[in-house]
Amino acid sequence: MQSFDLDKTDVVKIRSALNGDDEQLKVLLGDYHASEIAILFESLQQDDRERIINLLPVEVASEVISEMHEEAHPEELLLLLHPEKRTEIVEELDYDDATDIISQLEEHEQQEILEDLNEDDASNIRNLLTYAEDTAGGLMNTEFIKINLNLNKQDAIVELIRQSEDIEEFYTIFVVDDDNIFHGIVSLKDIIKAKGNVKITALVKAEVAWVYPDTDQEEVARLISQYNLTSIPVVDREMHLLGRVTFDDVIDVIEDENTEDILKISGVSEDEELSGNWVEAVKSRLPWLIINLGTAFLASAVVRYFEPTLEKLAILTAYMTIIAGMGGNAATQALAVTVRRISLYDLTDQQAYRTVLKEFTVGLINGAATGLIVLIVALFFDSNPLLGVVIFLAMTGNLVVAGVTGAGIPLVLKRLGIDPAIASSIIITTFTDVFGFFLLLGLASELLL
Amino acid sequence: MQSFDLDKTDVVKIRSALNGDDEQLKVLLGDYHASEIAILFESLQQDDRERIINLLPVEVASEVISEMHEEAHPEELLLLLHPEKRTEIVEELDYDDATDIISQLEEHEQQEILEDLNEDDASNIRNLLTYAEDTAGGLMNTEFIKINLNLNKQDAIVELIRQSEDIEEFYTIFVVDDDNIFHGIVSLKDIIKAKGNVKITALVKAEVAWVYPDTDQEEVARLISQYNLTSIPVVDREMHLLGRVTFDDVIDVIEDENTEDILKISGVSEDEELSGNWVEAVKSRLPWLIINLGTAFLASAVVRYFEPTLEKLAILTAYMTIIAGMGGNAATQALAVTVRRISLYDLTDQQAYRTVLKEFTVGLINGAATGLIVLIVALFFDSNPLLGVVIFLAMTGNLVVAGVTGAGIPLVLKRLGIDPAIASSIIITTFTDVFGFFLLLGLASELLL
Repeated sequence: MQSFDLDKTDVVKIRSALNGDDEQLKVLLGDYHASEIAILFESLQQDDRERIINLLPVEVASEVISEMHEEAHPEELLLLLHPEKRTEIVEELDYDDATDIISQLEEHEQQEILEDLNEDDASNIRNLLTYAEDTAGGLMNTEFIKINLNLNKQDAIVELIRQSEDIEEFYTIFVVDDDNIFHGIVSLKDIIKAKGNVKITALVKAEVAWVYPDTDQEEVARLISQYNLTSIPVVDREMHLLGRVTFDDVIDVIEDENTEDILKISGVSEDEELSGNWVEAVKSRLPWLIINLGTAFLASAVVRYFEPTLEKLAILTAYMTIIAGMGGNAATQALAVTVRRISLYDLTDQQAYRTVLKEFTVGLINGAATGLIVLIVALFFDSNPLLGVVIFLAMTGNLVVAGVTGAGIPLVLKRLGIDPAIASSIIITTFTDVFGFFLLLGLASELLL
Repeated sequence: MQSFDLDKTDVVKIRSALNGDDEQLKVLLGDYHASEIAILFESLQQDDRERIINLLPVEVASEVISEMHEEAHPEELLLLLHPEKRTEIVEELDYDDATDIISQLEEHEQQEILEDLNEDDASNIRNLLTYAEDTAGGLMNTEFIKINLNLNKQDAIVELIRQSEDIEEFYTIFVVDDDNIFHGIVSLKDIIKAKGNVKITALVKAEVAWVYPDTDQEEVARLISQYNLTSIPVVDREMHLLGRVTFDDVIDVIEDENTEDILKISGVSEDEELSGNWVEAVKSRLPWLIINLGTAFLASAVVRYFEPTLEKLAILTAYMTIIAGMGGNAATQALAVTVRRISLYDLTDQQAYRTVLKEFTVGLINGAATGLIVLIVALFFDSNPLLGVVIFLAMTGNLVVAGVTGAGIPLVLKRLGIDPAIASSIIITTFTDVFGFFLLLGLASELLL
C-alpha cells in the first residue's frame, strides 16, 4: 500500500530484538519511522519503551513521544527518563506538543521538568500551559515563520531561510508590522513568483480567517476545514500575532469530537478513554445506567398502574415489549441523524422546525407500516381484531413520539447552548418507554375491557 | 472570531438584494468568500442559485460550485446553466472536483457536459470517472507540481514557477524520472535553502508513503493523518505517478466516515442523507425497523413461553421491562466504545480478547450495582426477598451478556472482514431482550413458583 508500515512481522522482529543487545536493537530501529515506533509502543511496557527511547537519536525520540497517543501516557515515559535525556527531548519538541504532554503531569512534576529547560523554552511552555486544552490557545504552536511587511523580496527570502533553520515545516508565512500586529499571509510561491524586488506589503493577502486564544477547538476545526487552510493564525484582541494552529492538529480534534459524540449519544461519559481499563469504564458508565434505572422505574410505574388490565389480558405483556423496543430504536435513529446534522451544520430556526416536522412524518409512516405488520400477526396468533387495532395505534403513536423527541430534544438543547449529544439514547428511550406503555395499556383499558 | 463569516444579517441582506437589480446584487456578492456563498446556497432555490452563479466571475463561480455540499446537488445547478457558461466553469474546476460533481449525473448528461470541454480536460475527467468514489483514485487530483530529478536547482525553480501558473496551491513537490516513475518528494523550502546549483536528486526525500488508485479512502485518510501529510501521491503498480490526494479532501472523508459510523450503530442506512426528506428517511430506516420487529417477536416469544409464570406473578412484568431496558443501554455503551476503538486503531488478537474480558468485568460490576438497587426497591415495594434475589441475578447476568455481545460482535465482524458498525444497537439489543426475559422469567419459574 505504501513504502513503510508496521505489520505483525515487524512487531515480532522488534519484540525479539528486545531480548538481544542494544547495538542490534538500535540498528533494527533505524528502519522505522517515528510514528511507527509510537504505534509499537502501545503494546510495550514502560521499561521497554524507556530502553528504546534511550537508543534513538534525540530528534527521532522526541518525534516518537509527540506521536504517542495520549492514552499511552507519554508524560509518564518522560518522567522515567534520565533528567538530562529528558531535557534534550523536551527542548527538541514543538512547544505545543511539549505543552500537551507536560500539562498531564502534577504541578511539582511540571516544575521539575521546566526548571531544567533553557529559559526561552521554559517561558514559552509556561505561557502555553495557561490556555485551556480544548481552545485555539491550547492547540497553537508559537514557533512559526513570520516576516515584516516592510521587507523587500530579496531580504524576505534571506529572512525565510534564516527562520526555516528552526521550523520544521511551513505552508503559510504570516506577515506582521513592527508592533507584531498581524496583517495577513503570503505564500512562499507568491514571493518566488513576484517579479522585481517588490515589498512584501504588495504581496500580502489580508482577507484571511483568524482565531483568538479562547476560541473553542471545534470552531477552529470548522474554519480550517471550511476554508481548506493548512494553518490558521491565533491573535489577541489587539491583533498581536500569538501563534498558529495547523491542519494536522485539527484532524486529531475532529476525531476526538466525533468520539465524544458517539460516546455521548450512547450514554458513555465523553472522557472515558477508549483503551481505558474496567475501573474507568465503570466510573464513566455506571452513573448513566443509574439515571436509566430511575427512568425505567418511571416506565415500570406506568405498568404497575395498569396491573389490573394486565391481569385480565396477560397477552398484552408480549406486545408491550415490542412497542417499547421499536420506539427506542426509532428514537435512536432520529437522534443519530439529528445530532450528526447539528454537529456538521449550523441549522436555522426554520431548518430546525422542518427537521422535527420531517421526523414526525417519518414516525407516522414507519409506525403505521410496522404497526400493520404487528396487527396482522396479532390477528393470526390471537384472533382478536380489536387487540390488533390497539396495537396498531400504540405503535404508530409511539413512533411519532420517538421521531419528535429524537429530533426535538437535541435541537432544543442546542438552542439553550447545551451540547445536543447529551440527549443520549438513555434519555430519549425514557420517553418512548413511558409513552409506549401508556398508549398500549391505556388504549387497551378503554377499548378491550 | 475571524475577519469574515456568514451571519444572519448577511443572509437577510443578500436575500433582499435578490429582489433588486443584478448590478446591486453583484456588488454585494463581491464582499463574500466563495465558501460563504456556497453556505448561503443551502437556503436558496435553484433559480436564485443560477442567477447568482451567472453574476459571479468564473473563478469564484467555480469555487462556489466546488464548495457546495453534495446534498445541495451542485450537479443539478450545473445542468441548469447555459452550456457556454457551464463549460467555462467546469474547465475552471480542479479535475477531482469536476469528476465528483459530474459523476452524480446520468450517463447521457455526463456526455453532454464532457463533449463541450477541450480535449485535455475531457480526457482527464473521463479517466477519473473510472475510479470508484471511495478510493484514492476517486479522491485524487491529476493536476499537481512535479519535477524531473535530473534538473538542477536553478532550472527546477524556473520550472516550478512555470507550473505554478496553473496550480492554485502546492505544499509538496513530487519528483519523477524521465519515465514518470515516482522517486520521492522535495519541498520548496529545501530547494530554496540548498546551497549551490545542486541537482534535485540530491534533495529528494525517498522515504514517503504512497497509495494505489484502488486504495480505500479510509486507508488514505489514516496515512495522511498518521504521517501529518499535506498530500499523498497516487501511483500505479509500476510506480508511475498518477495524482495526489490532499489533506482537505481527507478531512471531508473523515467526517463522512464518522457520519456513517454513527448512523450505522444507530440502525440507519449509511447512505441516508442528513438533510434528506422524509421519503429517503423512511426508505433508509424502515428495513432496519422491520428487522428489529423480527427480533422483537423472538423476545416476545420468550415472554409467551413463560405466560403461565406471568399470570401467577404479574408483578414480574414491571421488572421485565427494567431488566431488558438496562441490558439494551449497557450493550449500546459497550458497542459504541468498541466500534469507535476499532475504527481508530488496529487491534491485535490479544487486545481484542482483553476488550471482551474488560466488558465482561464492567457488565458484572455495573449489573451487580444496579441489580442491588433494584433488589432494595423490590424489598421495599413488594416485600419479597426471593423476588429481589431473582431480579438481582437477572440484572447481573443480562449486563454481562450486554458487555460481551456489545464488544464481541463488532470484533468478530471485523475479523470476518465485515464493517463492525453494522452490529447496530438493533442487533445487539435483541440479545439483551431475549436473555433478559429468559433469565428473569426462567429464574422466577424455578425459584418463586
